[in-house]
Amino acid sequence: MRQFIVLGHEAPTTPGFSLSDLAGGAGRLDVLCRCVNAGLFVSHGIREDTRVHLVLNDEYTIRFDGSTAKRLYPNERAVASRIKGALESTADAIGHQPAEVSPGVELYRMGFESTLESVANDGTLVELHEEGEPLVEAEPPTDPVFVLSDHQEFTDREAEILADQAERRLSVGPEILHADQTMTVVHNWVDTDGYQQY
Amino acid sequence: MRQFIVLGHEAPTTPGFSLSDLAGGAGRLDVLCRCVNAGLFVSHGIREDTRVHLVLNDEYTIRFDGSTAKRLYPNERAVASRIKGALESTADAIGHQPAEVSPGVELYRMGFESTLESVANDGTLVELHEEGEPLVEAEPPTDPVFVLSDHQEFTDREAEILADQAERRLSVGPEILHADQTMTVVHNWVDTDGYQQY
Repeated sequence: MRQFIVLGHEAPTTPGFSLSDLAGGAGRLDVLCRCVNAGLFVSHGIREDTRVHLVLNDEYTIRFDGSTAKRLYPNERAVASRIKGALESTADAIGHQPAEVSPGVELYRMGFESTLESVANDGTLVELHEEGEPLVEAEPPTDPVFVLSDHQEFTDREAEILADQAERRLSVGPEILHADQTMTVVHNWVDTDGYQQY
Repeated sequence: MRQFIVLGHEAPTTPGFSLSDLAGGAGRLDVLCRCVNAGLFVSHGIREDTRVHLVLNDEYTIRFDGSTAKRLYPNERAVASRIKGALESTADAIGHQPAEVSPGVELYRMGFESTLESVANDGTLVELHEEGEPLVEAEPPTDPVFVLSDHQEFTDREAEILADQAERRLSVGPEILHADQTMTVVHNWVDTDGYQQY
């Protein structure tokens, strides 16, 4: 399985935002919506072996699971609408029990550290960072869990946690890409077995 | 320079569409908006050496030029708004003279073949197609002009033209990706000099 944890630093934690102002009033939710698209979708299909975890403002985490997602569409507004629905269900997320928002979409009352703990035994934790090892020089790990930040840098605290827990630090460079573009490149890198085989 | 020509088969040619229904009533304009994003944007910046040509229903072509674009933002709604503005200016596009919509954005009264002619001397024409040669086995050409289709296949006529005119046919495979994801992968491939150097 492949997993992506995306840290949304300005993301909303209440459902009152406008679907017509994702890049403004909704705290750059457009960035996170594109990450769900990049993580789960291929042409005319969905990556069933992939999960995307959106960490909203270190307070909630919405998990999109490609193996069970239904009626999910790649455009920003559709994904944002699903996030809005999730944020209407926060009262149902108690402890580590998620609120089931729709097939394949769950909301957890968990910030970054709890989300990291929840995937700790799933595979290899990889930090995606512009100063990491170039992808072309690395081999894709088994069951990678990639962690990346939205349009902002990792906070000092997040960087510390990752320095402590991540087994690898990789860069898609040489250009610094958006989070969703980074995910697309990383998927392709794993798809092609690290560009080594076809 | 890098250029991308994206064929939008159901794209609107009049500005009456709703910015809140890009994936529905606007003929999957969301796909083309994401292509502009993938083509022009990097983290906190724009690719100044890149142009994206959106061919709308073989009737108009909107050209986005990274070297002169201003106040352009990567979210779907913002790009769609710019396309709407372009389609309000069709009367100003006469012959091969474009309507200047905003800095770096021009609308031409040109379909696919005329757009191909307009870039004929710019560099190497490359068809992006799932059955092409794998990227990893190819060298990036100088000044590539990549042609790709939206969520639909190339029409028979388009495929014929490309078979006749394209010098290369490349695939980002093995997964079949969305048009915008394909552009992101291709950019990264050229950025890294075909994954050979860093």
